[in-house]
This record gives sequence, structure tokens and C-alpha cells, in this order.
Amino acid sequence: MLKGIPAILSPELLKVLCEMGHSDRLVISDGNFPAESMGKDAIVIRCDGHGVPEILDAILQVFPLDTYVDHPVNLMEVMPGDTVETPIWDTYKDIIKKNDSRGAAAVGNIERFAFYDEARTAYAIVATGEKALYANIMLQKGVI
Amino acid sequence: MLKGIPAILSPELLKVLCEMGHSDRLVISDGNFPAESMGKDAIVIRCDGHGVPEILDAILQVFPLDTYVDHPVNLMEVMPGDTVETPIWDTYKDIIKKNDSRGAAAVGNIERFAFYDEARTAYAIVATGEKALYANIMLQKGVI
Amino acid sequence: MLKGIPAILSPELLKVLCEMGHSDRLVISDGNFPAESMGKDAIVIRCDGHGVPEILDAILQVFPLDTYVDHPVNLMEVMPGDTVETPIWDTYKDIIKKNDSRGAAAVGNIERFAFYDEARTAYAIVATGEKALYANIMLQKGVI
Amino acid sequence: MLKGIPAILSPELLKVLCEMGHSDRLVISDGNFPAESMGKDAIVIRCDGHGVPEILDAILQVFPLDTYVDHPVNLMEVMPGDTVETPIWDTYKDIIKKNDSRGAAAVGNIERFAFYDEARTAYAIVATGEKALYANIMLQKGVI
Amino acid sequence: MLKGIPAILSPELLKVLCEMGHSDRLVISDGNFPAESMGKDAIVIRCDGHGVPEILDAILQVFPLDTYVDHPVNLMEVMPGDTVETPIWDTYKDIIKKNDSRGAAAVGNIERFAFYDEARTAYAIVATGEKALYANIMLQKGVI
Amino acid sequence: MLKGIPAILSPELLKVLCEMGHSDRLVISDGNFPAESMGKDAIVIRCDGHGVPEILDAILQVFPLDTYVDHPVNLMEVMPGDTVETPIWDTYKDIIKKNDSRGAAAVGNIERFAFYDEARTAYAIVATGEKALYANIMLQKGVI
Amino acid sequence: MLKGIPAILSPELLKVLCEMGHSDRLVISDGNFPAESMGKDAIVIRCDGHGVPEILDAILQVFPLDTYVDHPVNLMEVMPGDTVETPIWDTYKDIIKKNDSRGAAAVGNIERFAFYDEARTAYAIVATGEKALYANIMLQKGVI
Amino acid sequence: MLKGIPAILSPELLKVLCEMGHSDRLVISDGNFPAESMGKDAIVIRCDGHGVPEILDAILQVFPLDTYVDHPVNLMEVMPGDTVETPIWDTYKDIIKKNDSRGAAAVGNIERFAFYDEARTAYAIVATGEKALYANIMLQKGVI
Amino acid sequence: MLKGIPAILSPELLKVLCEMGHSDRLVISDGNFPAESMGKDAIVIRCDGHGVPEILDAILQVFPLDTYVDHPVNLMEVMPGDTVETPIWDTYKDIIKKNDSRGAAAVGNIERFAFYDEARTAYAIVATGEKALYANIMLQKGVI
Amino acid sequence: MLKGIPAILSPELLKVLCEMGHSDRLVISDGNFPAESMGKDAIVIRCDGHGVPEILDAILQVFPLDTYVDHPVNLMEVMPGDTVETPIWDTYKDIIKKNDSRGAAAVGNIERFAFYDEARTAYAIVATGEKALYANIMLQKGVI
Repeated sequence: MLKGIPAILSPELLKVLCEMGHSDRLVISDGNFPAESMGKDAIVIRCDGHGVPEILDAILQVFPLDTYVDHPVNLMEVMPGDTVETPIWDTYKDIIKKNDSRGAAAVGNIERFAFYDEARTAYAIVATGEKALYANIMLQKGVI
Repeated sequence: MLKGIPAILSPELLKVLCEMGHSDRLVISDGNFPAESMGKDAIVIRCDGHGVPEILDAILQVFPLDTYVDHPVNLMEVMPGDTVETPIWDTYKDIIKKNDSRGAAAVGNIERFAFYDEARTAYAIVATGEKALYANIMLQKGVI
Repeated sequence: MLKGIPAILSPELLKVLCEMGHSDRLVISDGNFPAESMGKDAIVIRCDGHGVPEILDAILQVFPLDTYVDHPVNLMEVMPGDTVETPIWDTYKDIIKKNDSRGAAAVGNIERFAFYDEARTAYAIVATGEKALYANIMLQKGVI
Repeated sequence: MLKGIPAILSPELLKVLCEMGHSDRLVISDGNFPAESMGKDAIVIRCDGHGVPEILDAILQVFPLDTYVDHPVNLMEVMPGDTVETPIWDTYKDIIKKNDSRGAAAVGNIERFAFYDEARTAYAIVATGEKALYANIMLQKGVI
Repeated sequence: MLKGIPAILSPELLKVLCEMGHSDRLVISDGNFPAESMGKDAIVIRCDGHGVPEILDAILQVFPLDTYVDHPVNLMEVMPGDTVETPIWDTYKDIIKKNDSRGAAAVGNIERFAFYDEARTAYAIVATGEKALYANIMLQKGVI
Repeated sequence: MLKGIPAILSPELLKVLCEMGHSDRLVISDGNFPAESMGKDAIVIRCDGHGVPEILDAILQVFPLDTYVDHPVNLMEVMPGDTVETPIWDTYKDIIKKNDSRGAAAVGNIERFAFYDEARTAYAIVATGEKALYANIMLQKGVI
Repeated sequence: MLKGIPAILSPELLKVLCEMGHSDRLVISDGNFPAESMGKDAIVIRCDGHGVPEILDAILQVFPLDTYVDHPVNLMEVMPGDTVETPIWDTYKDIIKKNDSRGAAAVGNIERFAFYDEARTAYAIVATGEKALYANIMLQKGVI
Repeated sequence: MLKGIPAILSPELLKVLCEMGHSDRLVISDGNFPAESMGKDAIVIRCDGHGVPEILDAILQVFPLDTYVDHPVNLMEVMPGDTVETPIWDTYKDIIKKNDSRGAAAVGNIERFAFYDEARTAYAIVATGEKALYANIMLQKGVI
Repeated sequence: MLKGIPAILSPELLKVLCEMGHSDRLVISDGNFPAESMGKDAIVIRCDGHGVPEILDAILQVFPLDTYVDHPVNLMEVMPGDTVETPIWDTYKDIIKKNDSRGAAAVGNIERFAFYDEARTAYAIVATGEKALYANIMLQKGVI
Repeated sequence: MLKGIPAILSPELLKVLCEMGHSDRLVISDGNFPAESMGKDAIVIRCDGHGVPEILDAILQVFPLDTYVDHPVNLMEVMPGDTVETPIWDTYKDIIKKNDSRGAAAVGNIERFAFYDEARTAYAIVATGEKALYANIMLQKGVI
């Protein structure tokens, strides 16, 4: 643990966030996401037992979102015909607003299988134990 | 994640708990414990951001305590002259009682530096982010 | 060994089952399956000396089958013209019924070479010593 | 699997048995033996889900016992005061008799903690899931 | 060394033969074959100083040939125009006859460059010091 | 680079500082210190081209000094008879004062060869290119 | 550190510069460049906390620029429509002039995404903490 | 060092020459050749400080040239328009003549970029410090 | 294989013989010697299926025996009371005589357990399949 | 190769010389020195085919000798009774004089077995092919 840095960020996660550069992407996945197989070419960091919101909140305290693109944050679109509710998205947007002035405007959607393709080329995947549905979220790093 | 197994137990932690045998010891350490240096000859598993109680509770659901010794659980004794309170010990004893009929009677104390020596020879150290003082706890595995 | 978890599941197998996510596939292969060459990009876990049924039964106690697809379980189709009997398939269906309400309806078939292609991209292959013919089986993980 | 070699012997176990030489020792441990910690300097081969007898029987079909010592096989002595029965020892002696003309005469006992010390310097430990008590057994390799 | 297993089979070779499955291929190469470069994606086992016949004979005592194909054994065809004699092929056929009832009928030929292509995808290459010409041989494993 | 964290801290250094616990020691060495040989059992992080002051200043922004000991900071004592001046020590004390209320009182001295012995058991050594003499400094981590 | 070699060149950077040959390319990247992901097939050397000019100046004291091409040095072109100033380019040209008689004439430009493609195939990437915009620079090694 | 083997051949180079087979290629490169990047998929052996002739002479004492091709030795063709002299080629031919009765007739030329492509698929690259121009040479191994 | 070097010497064995220096010791062990456990700190090279004489003969063609000691070759003394014959020793002496003018005078004996202690500190152990008794032999390298 | 740095220094040797610090020791050994066994805990760099003088001369151009000790250079003393001449020592002293004003006065002697003990704790050993007797030399690094 370090002064002024959220304790939920493990030493390895901190290292990975720090070594990422402009436009590198990070996936924070829910508990059922196939993080290890999607992340075969990425760095997979396990955060079992944590929800996405507390991890997202901690990461955004140190990790700048890309200001060169419209949607540095992306969610996995609900499949057509699926009537599931996604209240966790509001939580995400509140957290983003605390750390980026664009707030919800910075958040886009990616169709499910396109999301998977993007995830396969992400720099790192943070595997949480989040139980909410459609809770995966992808962040693109900005400049300092 | 698996059916019937607490989601807070990471795949690697589950593996380590499973491969331990009778009389092997496991330390669940608080956030300031020097887990990496104490655990140079052990397996260190990071659980940053979690407290000891939720980890302890999950572990004891699958991990039997040794019934061949009086104190399969040990806490780090308060240093002579130190007036600190250790309310978390009561939490630990409640959790133990749920999983082992001996309850608090199964819990012993080890003097601080002797505790360190024992920790250096433990099979594994689970490094949590627990903020309470004197919160380190050592478990000795029993038979199935 | 752990409380409440089948002892036949090795520590490493438990870890692999746990780290798999939604839609990842696992092959339980018979004793003549070329598990090491098929599994060059997968994790191969040896269970020499065991049959498929006891491994399957243990795995399904902790491993949920995918409910988003019709056939989360797949067998290798008998080659056209081959008159071999496959009584072990009934055993498999009985085991599945114990753990998944869909029972035999959850089981599909894949043509032999298509099965091989799927096996090459599976997350893991469990190599048993099963002696029955056409005894390979592929499982797709569901959500918790 | 190979012709004429028991299928329960995994490829790695076969390799280890083959590369051992005169006087090297092998432990076949029960399911609660702390095989991984005892075997830190040894090769540990997991045979989860198997009992000791079937492993012992298979090993002795290819592995010669040392004829230069009186007791190439050693069991862990029952602790003084312990009234446990050890019927599995008779099973072991029957298996040995099938493969070595000395039969039960080739079997000695080692006091529990001396057994542990010997185990720490063994060449390999085969970790079974055997549930019987006092079921650990140590074999010393002979010449071909 | 082990009882009943040819001493010329090294521990590692024994392991590799054992872990191969139905239809996996093994090349036993002569002393000038570029085993290391052909075998970049394979397991290369050195048997310097041995001829192919003694290795082949030992392997076939434990290794079943594939009975689902006509030619589980293949030799490298003599190049058109080359008048070299290949008496070692007769030796091979005699050895095969001892272990497989099909005898010479189980042996096919592959054109030289096609043989190289097959060798590149073999599971393992056993590099002998055989001095005879056109002495490379490829075996396909059968079922037990 | 990350928001609010000095850019001079490399990803790996940040990880190391974060994973250290209460009482672990860190050496920031000058450019002539034999960091690699002293640090054979430690983690050595190269910061070639930097002076100690800028590294020390950045580290102390996130790294708490131990408050349970009198001298969580130690310098290498000038050898008896050596008349060298050590103005960089004043710089160090100013930097410490900015981050720890004890200021210069937190700084002790260790005789040269005792300093070397301590360095050999440190958790990590940060190798700078500092050119000042007697510029090595050892920090002991406190609690968060 | 060594006599006559700039102290800012770490041992590993010195090794990499030395082992590069004619026409190999080296990127010195600014603090926001995604060095780790761009450099997955390259050697990435971290120089956190340093600017590009001091690294460039040190490298060019030992590293010859290619004289067989017109532009052994390349900068990342400003994106069309971007009005950013790039005063650091003048600094670069001054440094180059000190070490190569061609001076600014040796410097070319590469369109941004072409620059990224080239970076992915570079031999090494030196990741600095440079804060200036459009500060990435690519060097092609000449002959000695 | 060994009896009767040139002392300039390092243990690793000797191993590599020995494990090469018929038709494998070896590059002996000059001091400016980008051996490490060209040899990413090859074995690179450094012989810094040596010229090509002494290495070539030593290698040919133990390494047979391929007699099945016209040009088992190949040089990098001078670029059209380049008027450079290549006196070192005569030295090479004299050395070859000492060890292969074909002498200069065994030597061919490959256009520069074709030579690079061949080098990328060579089995090994020996990186010398040779200062002569157009001094790279490629050898194809023959049979013993 | 290489010109003028016995083909029985594998590439790795050749490398090891070459990298050994004055006074380093090499054990050529028989088929029952516990080479892997004795050689835990050494390099173990397997020569399964070969006898000691052919390996010894090949090694001595390139490996000089130490001329600074009386007995650069040592055999394992017959245990007191053991009436075994050791005709292979004569074979060894004949081979030595071919390569070292001292012949049998260069051969000493070491008591069995002292031999084991020496073997544990040897540079390398060559594990043959030699079936003769008391056939282990230790060589000490001389200067070139 | 790099500008102004002797080409005989390999990339790895340059790295090692650079990462050494004040008082670290380097052995340049002759061709018969058991560099690999003496250097089990050190870094061994092979310079086969080179003599000690050219390596020493190149190293001293970048490597400062320790000025805090009387004899930063040490030779292996001639054994009592040995009448060998050591003319190479004069060559060494001439080379040292070119790079260190103390010249021959900086050179001491160490008794043979004490020299071996020192060599075992050196930071690195450079293994040359030097043929002169008593040609080993040990250097202690000074400050920059």
C-alpha cells in the first residue's frame, strides 16, 4: 500500500496502469467474462471478490481517459431482443463524472462480438467478481 | 467462479488451499504485513482491497482446521505495554465458530517475533488490505 | 483436498475450472486421444488411470453448463459406416441429468474432424485413461 | 498409454521411475500428506483421486525394490498410544509379494518424524488421494 | 531403467511415447537429418551414437502402430534417378513384423519433400546417429 | 505515467514500493555502489542518470517512513579519518522534512560495513547515477 | 558506469545499442507513447523521468547514424490541421549536428500511423518521460 | 578447449555446429550485420573481436559442406553500381580449398536482399567483428 | 555430427566437455547409478543404451586427462568382503592407454561412499546404460 | 559495435562491466581455467579464441581500477618450487600503465588456492583462450 493511492490497486495492477500509454485499452470484466482466454495475448490481473464499481473508481483516480476520442469508455451493448436492465451503467457514469468532466458523454457502446474482438487486443484485462449483467467496461488511456 | 465455492477465492488461492496437506500453515496477513519479504520461500497470493474477515470466512468453508493440535489458529500477541484493542479477534472467533465446533478454544497466541519466524516457514501467505491492527492470523490445515 | 469438493479434482484442475469463464470450452478426453498435440495452445491436465465418468461427475458438481446455447455438451459423432456401440453416452447423460435440469437435451454431437478443430481451441483438455470408444466429451461453461 | 505398461502410470511418473537409480527413494503418500511442502526439493507427481494400492501395484510392475538392504519398503510407524488399525498394510504386503519374493519381510517401519525427514530427501513424492490412515509408504529402488 | 522396458529408451523418450495419442506421428531420423531445425515445433530427443534399428525395435515393444490407416509406417522415397540401395528397409520390415501382424504391408513411402513437410508437424523426432542412407522412418501411433 | 504520481517512478519501482510492507528496507544507492552484487537476493531497479535527491523526493511522496523506530532513514557513516564533506545529507534532510514531521531527527547513521550488511538484506535497491560521495541512503517503510 | 561513456546510458541500454547492426532501428519515445504495447516484439528499455534530448545526446555519442539512407532520423509528422508547435525538434537537430555532419538534413518525417507501424518493427524502444508533444524520434544505425 | 578442435570454437558454437544436419545453413556475419534482428528465429552466437577468416577456417575443420548442391557457400553480391573491392573473398576461397576439394567452385553469390531473406531462416548466425565490406558468408552443411 | 569427432558424443556432451577446465571432474556412470539425484548440482547428460567403454573411448579422444595429479582417473573401490570380479576395469585401462601414455598408472580407486561424495561435486555426470558392476568411472580434466 | 568502444567487448561484456560497482571484482581467465565451475555464482562470459592481453587492454579503456586499495589488480602466485617463467605478467603491467598511473605498483599476487576462493566470489569471469601459464588476472573496479 502507498500514501494517496487506493489500497484496492494491487502492486501489479498499479504497474500495469503506469506502463500503459496513450490509446492503450484496459478491460474491467465481470465475474463470468472469459478473461483468461480472451486475454491470452494480454496481461490478466485477477481481482476476485471485487465488484467493477470499486475497481473502476480506484483506477480512474490515477488513470486519465483519452481526450482525443469521443468515447474513451465503452460498454458492451445489450443484445437485440434482450430486455435486461443495466442499472450498473448509471453507477459507472457517476464514477466517470467524478474523474472526467465529460461524464456520461465519454461513454460509448460496442456490439457484443465487436467488444470481444477489442478485448482480445487490449493491453490488460482486470478480472473482477462482479455479478451484474452487461457489466464489462473498456477504458482507453489518455495523456498526462 | 464455481458453483458452491465462495467467489472471493481466486483460482490460484483455491489451488493452493487444495494442495496443502495436514499440518501445513497458511498466513492471512493485514495490509501492512511485509508479505513479500516474509514469504520469499512461500507462495504469496495478493488479495488487495479485501479485509481479513471475508477472506477467512471463505477459506474456512473449504479448509479444515487441524484437530490434532490444540490451537490450529494463531494470532500475533499484543506486545507487552501496548494498550491497543483488538476487536477484530472477536470477529475471527465468530467466523471460526461457524466452521469448527471448538470455536474460540481453537485459537492461540504467538509472540510477535515468533509469529514472524513461523510465517517465514508457512506454505502460503494471503496478503489482504486489512486495516485493523494485530490482524494477522495463521491457520494450520487438518485432515479431510 | 478440500471440504465439499470431490477429491478427484486435482489442485490444478480446480484452478483451471475456476478461471474459465462464460463460453470457454473444456474437453475430457479418453485414453487414446492425442491430448498433448491437440492441446498445444491449451492447458493439458493429466488424469491417467481415471475413466471419463468419474471425472465428468466431479467436474459437474462445481462447473455450470452454459444455458445460453442449446448444446453446452458435445460428443464426437460416430463415423458414418461405423457400427460401434456407445453405451458410455448413456452414462454421461445420467451424470448430466444429476447436475443440469435439461439432462440429455443439453447434449449435441459434432462430426469427428470438426470436433478435433474445436478441441484445438478449447481452454483446457483433461486427459483421462478412459478405455471406451467415442468417449471424448466437450463442455461449455455457463454463468454463475 | 503404452503396451504392457499399466495405464495408471502417467507419462511423467514413468519418466521419474525410469530416471531413478539404485538407492533412490520414492514416497507414495496418502491424501492428507503435505506432499508439496515435504517435497520442495523433490519431484511431486499428483495422482489425485487414486488410492495407494493401485498406484503401488502399477509401480512395482516396473520398479525393482532394492535387494541390498533388508527393508526397501518402509511404512510410517503408528504413534505410541494410538490404537488405530492399519489394514491397508496387509494390502501393501500382498502387492509386494506379487512382485518381490521377500514379500512382507521386505517391509520395515520408520518412526513418524524420522519418516518425515526421509520424505524430505526422497527423489519423488507421488501424491494420491488415499483415505486410509497411516497409508504413506516409501520405496527404495534396486538394480536392474 | 525399469523392469521389462528396453534400457535404450531414455526416461524422456519413454515419457514422450507414453503421452502421444492416436494418430500422433514420431520420426526416427538418421544421423544427417536436420532434426533440430525440422523439429522446431516438436520435441527433439537425441540418441546420438545409436542406429535406427535398435531404437525402432525398442520403441515398437511398447508403442502400438495405428491400425486405422494402411501405412502407419512411412519411409522417405528414393529420389528419382538415385540408384542407391536401401538394405536397411528390410531390417525395418523384419522388426515391424515382430511387433505388428501386418509386417511389411504396414509400410508406405512418402516423396522426400512431402516427408520433410510431415516431419515438421510430427509430435517428436528421435535423432539417432544412423549412418545408412534413406534411413529416416515415421511411425503413427495406434490405440491401446 | 499516472495522475498524481511522480513521473520519475517507473512502473516497476511503483510496484516494488507498493508491495513492500511494514519494516521492509529500501536502499537508494549512488552511481558507484555495487548495487547488482549487493542486491543478489534483492530486487534491483536501475535509475541510471538520476541523482538520489529527485528519486528520494518522489519516493517519499508515496512511501511512508516507519514511525515505530527512531531512525527509519539511515546514511552510511563517514569512515574515521576521512575528511570528506557530505552536503547532500542536508538536501536529504530537507526532502524528508517535507514528507515526515520528524525531519532530520528521523535520520541515523550506520558504520560503512554494517551498512553493506544491511543492504544485502534489503528488499530492493534503487541504483541511481548520483555522483556525490557518501550518498547512499536506506529507508524503512512504515504503516499506512 | 564506465569511463568515457555517458552515465545516463544504463547497462542494458548500452548492451542493446552495441548489439544492434546496420539498418536496425531504435525509437526514443515520449512519456505518453504506448511503448510496451508497440514494443511487444521489441526490447523495451525504460528511462522514466528523463527527457528525450539528454537520452538522444548520450546515445549519439556512441551510436552511428546510417549514412546509406537520406534520413537515418525520423520524426512523427504533425497531423494535418494540428497547429501544435514542435520546438523540441530544433533541439534534436542541434544534438544531431554535434554528432553527424549532415545535421538537420539527416532528419525526415513519417506520417503518424506509418510511424507507429515502423515502431512495431523497431529493434528497441527507449521509453522516456518526455513531456513535449510530437517528441518521438526514430534512429537507424549506421556502420562503424 | 578440447584436443584437436580449434580453440576459437566456443562450447556453444561447437554444440550448434554438431546439432545441425544436412542442408541446414549457417551465416558468419561481419561486425555491422544486424545479427540479432535477422536472427530472431535463429541461434545467434557472438564472436566479437574476431574476423570472419579465422572463424571460417576453424569451422570448416569440423563442418562438412553440402556436396548435393553446387554452391554450399554463398556470398552477398555487390550491389549494382557499387565499385567496392572484395579481397576478403579470395581469402575465403583459399580457406575453403583447404577443406573442400571443389574450392572456389563451391562458392556462389546471392543478391543482397535475397541474402537477408535466407539469413532470416538460417539455423544459426555467428556474429563476428569483421571489418571488411561484403564479408558475410553463408554455409550449407553436408553429410558425414 | 562433425568431421573427426566421434558420433557418439552428443552436441550437448561435446559442449560440456569443451567448457570444462583444468581439474574439473566428470563421472561416467553405469545404468544403475542414481545419476539424477547425485547430479542435482551438476549437469546430467543421458546416454541411455550405451556402455561405458564406448563413451569413455570417445571422450578420451578429445578430453585430456590431468597430468598434475597421479590419478586423473578413479574407479569405485570394491566393498570389503565383496568377491565380485571387475573385468571392465581392464577394458578401461586399455582405452586409457590408447590416449594417455601413463596408461593404468593413471588410474586410482576411491572408497564407495567417498566416490559418491566426489560425484556430488562433479561438473557433469554422463549416465550410460552400462550393465557391468562397479563400472562407474571419474575423470579429471587436464590442460591443453 | 559502438563508436569509441573497443570492438572486442561484446554487448554482454559491456553490460556487465557497466553494472559493476566500486570494489566488485572481475576475473579474466586463461583457456584452461575452470571458469564455468568456479563461476557457478558469477556471470561467465566466453571470449574463446582471444588472449588475455587484448581483452585486458580493451577492458581497461572503459573500466577504472580501484584507487582505494593498494592492489586493484592481482595475479595468481607461482606455486613454490615451480620454475615456470611468466613473461605475460610484463605485458599486463605495460597495459595497466597505459590506463592507470600507478602502473606495476597496482599489481599484487595471491596464492593459488586463495586466488580460487576469490574467483568463486567474483562478480564475473571472462573466459579467454589464453595459452600462457599463470595468466589469470583479477581486477577490482574503482569509482568514476
